Amino acid sequence: MAPAGGPRVKKGILERLNSGEVVVGDGGFLFSLEKRGFVKAGLWTPEAVVEYPSAVRQLHTEFLRAGADVLQTFTFSAAEDRMENKVTGVWVGNSYEEQTVNAAACDLAQEVADGGAALVAGGICQTSLYKYHKDETRIKNIFRLQLGVFARKHVDFLIAEYFEHVEEAVWAVEVLREVGAPVAVTMCIGPEGDMHGVTPGECAVRLSRAGANIIGVNCRFGPWTSLQTMKLMKEGLRDAGLQAHLMVQCLGFHTPDCGKGGFVDLPEYPFGLEPRVATRWDIQKYAREAYNLGVRYIGGCCGFEPYHIRAIAEELAPERGFLPPASEKHGSWGSGLDMHTKPWIRARARREYWETLLPASGRPFCPSLSKPDA
Amino acid sequence: MAPAGGPRVKKGILERLNSGEVVVGDGGFLFSLEKRGFVKAGLWTPEAVVEYPSAVRQLHTEFLRAGADVLQTFTFSAAEDRMENKVTGVWVGNSYEEQTVNAAACDLAQEVADGGAALVAGGICQTSLYKYHKDETRIKNIFRLQLGVFARKHVDFLIAEYFEHVEEAVWAVEVLREVGAPVAVTMCIGPEGDMHGVTPGECAVRLSRAGANIIGVNCRFGPWTSLQTMKLMKEGLRDAGLQAHLMVQCLGFHTPDCGKGGFVDLPEYPFGLEPRVATRWDIQKYAREAYNLGVRYIGGCCGFEPYHIRAIAEELAPERGFLPPASEKHGSWGSGLDMHTKPWIRARARREYWETLLPASGRPFCPSLSKPDA
Amino acid sequence: MAPAGGPRVKKGILERLNSGEVVVGDGGFLFSLEKRGFVKAGLWTPEAVVEYPSAVRQLHTEFLRAGADVLQTFTFSAAEDRMENKVTGVWVGNSYEEQTVNAAACDLAQEVADGGAALVAGGICQTSLYKYHKDETRIKNIFRLQLGVFARKHVDFLIAEYFEHVEEAVWAVEVLREVGAPVAVTMCIGPEGDMHGVTPGECAVRLSRAGANIIGVNCRFGPWTSLQTMKLMKEGLRDAGLQAHLMVQCLGFHTPDCGKGGFVDLPEYPFGLEPRVATRWDIQKYAREAYNLGVRYIGGCCGFEPYHIRAIAEELAPERGFLPPASEKHGSWGSGLDMHTKPWIRARARREYWETLLPASGRPFCPSLSKPDA
Amino acid sequence: MAPAGGPRVKKGILERLNSGEVVVGDGGFLFSLEKRGFVKAGLWTPEAVVEYPSAVRQLHTEFLRAGADVLQTFTFSAAEDRMENKVTGVWVGNSYEEQTVNAAACDLAQEVADGGAALVAGGICQTSLYKYHKDETRIKNIFRLQLGVFARKHVDFLIAEYFEHVEEAVWAVEVLREVGAPVAVTMCIGPEGDMHGVTPGECAVRLSRAGANIIGVNCRFGPWTSLQTMKLMKEGLRDAGLQAHLMVQCLGFHTPDCGKGGFVDLPEYPFGLEPRVATRWDIQKYAREAYNLGVRYIGGCCGFEPYHIRAIAEELAPERGFLPPASEKHGSWGSGLDMHTKPWIRARARREYWETLLPASGRPFCPSLSKPDA
Repeated sequence: MAPAGGPRVKKGILERLNSGEVVVGDGGFLFSLEKRGFVKAGLWTPEAVVEYPSAVRQLHTEFLRAGADVLQTFTFSAAEDRMENKVTGVWVGNSYEEQTVNAAACDLAQEVADGGAALVAGGICQTSLYKYHKDETRIKNIFRLQLGVFARKHVDFLIAEYFEHVEEAVWAVEVLREVGAPVAVTMCIGPEGDMHGVTPGECAVRLSRAGANIIGVNCRFGPWTSLQTMKLMKEGLRDAGLQAHLMVQCLGFHTPDCGKGGFVDLPEYPFGLEPRVATRWDIQKYAREAYNLGVRYIGGCCGFEPYHIRAIAEELAPERGFLPPASEKHGSWGSGLDMHTKPWIRARARREYWETLLPASGRPFCPSLSKPDA
Repeated sequence: MAPAGGPRVKKGILERLNSGEVVVGDGGFLFSLEKRGFVKAGLWTPEAVVEYPSAVRQLHTEFLRAGADVLQTFTFSAAEDRMENKVTGVWVGNSYEEQTVNAAACDLAQEVADGGAALVAGGICQTSLYKYHKDETRIKNIFRLQLGVFARKHVDFLIAEYFEHVEEAVWAVEVLREVGAPVAVTMCIGPEGDMHGVTPGECAVRLSRAGANIIGVNCRFGPWTSLQTMKLMKEGLRDAGLQAHLMVQCLGFHTPDCGKGGFVDLPEYPFGLEPRVATRWDIQKYAREAYNLGVRYIGGCCGFEPYHIRAIAEELAPERGFLPPASEKHGSWGSGLDMHTKPWIRARARREYWETLLPASGRPFCPSLSKPDA
Repeated sequence: MAPAGGPRVKKGILERLNSGEVVVGDGGFLFSLEKRGFVKAGLWTPEAVVEYPSAVRQLHTEFLRAGADVLQTFTFSAAEDRMENKVTGVWVGNSYEEQTVNAAACDLAQEVADGGAALVAGGICQTSLYKYHKDETRIKNIFRLQLGVFARKHVDFLIAEYFEHVEEAVWAVEVLREVGAPVAVTMCIGPEGDMHGVTPGECAVRLSRAGANIIGVNCRFGPWTSLQTMKLMKEGLRDAGLQAHLMVQCLGFHTPDCGKGGFVDLPEYPFGLEPRVATRWDIQKYAREAYNLGVRYIGGCCGFEPYHIRAIAEELAPERGFLPPASEKHGSWGSGLDMHTKPWIRARARREYWETLLPASGRPFCPSLSKPDA
Repeated sequence: MAPAGGPRVKKGILERLNSGEVVVGDGGFLFSLEKRGFVKAGLWTPEAVVEYPSAVRQLHTEFLRAGADVLQTFTFSAAEDRMENKVTGVWVGNSYEEQTVNAAACDLAQEVADGGAALVAGGICQTSLYKYHKDETRIKNIFRLQLGVFARKHVDFLIAEYFEHVEEAVWAVEVLREVGAPVAVTMCIGPEGDMHGVTPGECAVRLSRAGANIIGVNCRFGPWTSLQTMKLMKEGLRDAGLQAHLMVQCLGFHTPDCGKGGFVDLPEYPFGLEPRVATRWDIQKYAREAYNLGVRYIGGCCGFEPYHIRAIAEELAPERGFLPPASEKHGSWGSGLDMHTKPWIRARARREYWETLLPASGRPFCPSLSKPDA
């Protein structure tokens, strides 16, 4: 199967999902750009879109090349420590207007997307306000401000993501529905449900009834935990007789040991997560299991680098009918090793080898699991 | 200590080292660009400099911003499987002339370096021919071809790197000495010495006598193993009454379990090394220990991402007197977490926390060490 | 607190439990005697009581000395592979009559118990027949045959143990109730319940209604899993308004990774369980947690050696008011190390050291968890 | 191959070794009896021979039954914390005369040995005095006092064991040679040599020249480390043109991470070593490798339970021509599982399964290696 050659017609997200296509999402900007030197951990804000646009453009390009069908605007802005600033619209530590940042983020995503058939999704996330008060009007107004930019920039669809409380996620969906574009919504919850104890199944039902077209989870939990949550969401929708497209954008980290709060509670967060990073083979397995579960919008979040997105696209190449452009630089299942002069390295040029490898940590003084804080 | 503000005068590599400065090297292009989708593992060739120059430029920029004082041209070309092609100068899998690639690589490094006070180093490495015959003339001619490009491009100094056999490294040094620029040389050996059993101490002595100004190791082994090798090199030079600047550019992977052949023999090479990736704190410790050992040229190789280079520059900021530009996006020792709303995450905003953390792999079904193949 | 000096009056099991005393059970005979060379793994039969009575007597003596208040007759006979033989009463691999074996087992336990104030408990367990047919009459007759021996030997009370199906456990309780002695019953189930899916809470309720005086779990699962099951049993009884004494005799192995079938499904069963053996400190913690949960009959099963039983008795010495005889050879919390000449070993003579130690496996090529078979 | 039936003629230790026989040693009394409640850790003294003779007799019986050709008197007395007492001959914590203890120990070993063809070896070990002064006369007199008992009791041969300094070991050999019985000597050193830096090879040479008939190592280090030391001893003897029988009695614990001081420096010593206990399969491998190295006296030390000794005897049954008595209760390579009703457990009844099993620790929060103290 050769990398895609000719131009692809740009179809809408629902058109794609309705026709049974697999949609590959992109990966995480915050962690990738933190490692590249353009995002500050702790703050986790996207001012790089105005400060270092070439760095953001490059990462969009890499995800596109890796096979992403969607480029999400780098507008994430949910860090809990910025409540006051949220209210005033001033970013901590710099002097950029939020709307300036969000407009620049749209421009960058669209500029790169135009080079392919990728869709641009405008993203909003939970507010810091919700945990202090539950003022629906005020919070919806914040969402509406952000939505205004996306509407002016004509993004292809909208994503409300990283919600811990289904009530606030429902408000977000209700606002995003106002402009008519398709709406995806993801919660950052695990199998135990939202912070008020609403089960994943019930969350999915409420989001569907609020009008979301695509429903799922993102961030906070690794592949296997996120797929368990998706299973519960799917069952909840089925039991309620509802239909929705399913979406998963999990962490690129293994987190079997995290509690209800997800990876932020692990002692390694955020500066010692390296040993938990998924291999490309882990991600191929995740993509296959997500597909088998009926999820058709499959991407990643924090920890997903371009090669992880490529792994999704390669695993599902039989279903999609084409390989992503970046596969020109990647032999399937390690086949690029088949010309190596050392026979024991050549012996690694096969699927069974990488599928069954149990990779060592090289850290014999470290444990394999941690107890989450709090 | 604030990030460096004003322009810095560009001093030569020997001028810097002779005056006792710490020189921060850059990190690994092959592994970083493989994960970004621009290099093919197995082949490990740098045609991205002509195919995707913006990707290479971006990575140079990130290393510079992370604090690198040296930008090495992306001209690595030692994959063992390309012997015939080496002879003809034609790259496997594409149609670029080697000299075209190397010239483009120089241009990219110089373009980025001009934005700072960074030096550009032209790099050559071991040939695939040496293990088939030991034709000194023929091999030296290959080196001379590459040197020609570097001379025309006026790189600041030269690096001969990734040599398994000290004899070939000596030949490389002899050739590089021909144009008068300072010469650094690194071998990809561990404490057991080169592939013919020459000890690290004896390797260093021979390289010094061949005229190398800067001597050390790169690639193949993780931080602690490489520092052991450096200790042996230092002792060898001392015992022979010789003086040379010391240099280390180890892997960004933990490899306590690899044998004489280094990380390529580990079962995880090259597609399952994730759990072995060093944290920034590991690298700070490595930088400090290298410094204490007397090494003054400290950088990285495969596995070193920009944030690892920043960790070197931050650790040695007291000695150097300034922080790298990318520290604007990094609180020292996790201090960026001090405003987090969750108290148990705020509690991580301190040096002792990260220095003593034993990060879990999140992989309870995997071992901590592997047995090397071969 | 000194080891118990004077003679203790021999009180009945219910008298003890009703007055709030902690009753310390004994440990596992099969695994201990297998390692000593007197029991065959796979077969797991107790013919040692006639073949090597001094070995059995010695182990009874050690458990008594370690603090056990109960010596259970070594009459276990549930290996699934002996169905036919069960019917005929002939043991596989030897020619002993079952009743001969069971009578000898009673004599040995009583002989040793007479040296202290320990009670002798006659033990029966699930049959191999139950999984092939559910002939209540036939199975109850098997129980009655065994009970006849216990009645003639005047054991102090009866234990029906190692039941996978609550229905069969109920039959056992009904039979054991026939002679008037107190009846304890334990199932070898985990939190997921019995092999027909009856929850631990419901199991406990049925057993209580069948007339069992003491209810709990034994074998198959490690300390923490077994305590979870006990919690569910306790809640089940409470919700049904029932009262029963609680009992736990878990494995001396760590088995967080075993599935519903328990440790027999772990790949290490039965000849590679060494790395999972609990330390004495693990068992002290288990004893404390069991006590806090309201369990008052606390012992062990496979993997419990005499020093593990001593750990229970030492942990609960404050509540019981005395130390076991074997504590004459054991400094509490490692205090016996306080005279060591090496200061770093003396530094281990304290509770905090052993309570927080994370003991290494010394096996860097092995994982920390396994996937259960089947 | 059936367990040995008829009586075996009792041949001397040198007669056996000279004729090429494999001699199986016994295991460790201190750790085994500590777990059974008869020895106090920290003190590590053998007063159980007078206090609880049946416990000591039982353990001798088990080792004999497991295949031991030698029963060593339980007279170990080297705990470093008893220097003063050593001088006076009074044991700490009790009132037994050392000579009373040693005589009782001889009687017990001989009583059990008479039941088989086993030899009785009288054992002495390093003094606590040596590290305070090097008074040869005084130390030799201590050895002579112990030797007097062994001579009166007519033990079959003598073992000087657990020496950290070759000088003191030489003195011991010189004393033991005085009565004419064969002399074995073992040092508790690793590949780095004795506490004064004398290499294992040189230690072996000095011990051979002092007149020792059998030379090797015991205690302090696990199987693989001890075999490395034996290899160095063998090479030392060969290079010096000397001949001696080789002997190894390593720990039953995995200790790849211990330093020069051996397992006492590991943080887990002595109450958290459980996860390090060797399986029977580890010991079969150890026995085979020891045999292949030319070692013919193969036993164990601390951590070796009877089933570990049986594993040596079973592994070397082809060479010896018979199985030990305890093999009546042990199917070779797990064959006793072949009648199990669960097919996945039956599948474990084969050599390849147990030889390749990587047993999990069941402790995901613990590391695989520790850093030694001091």
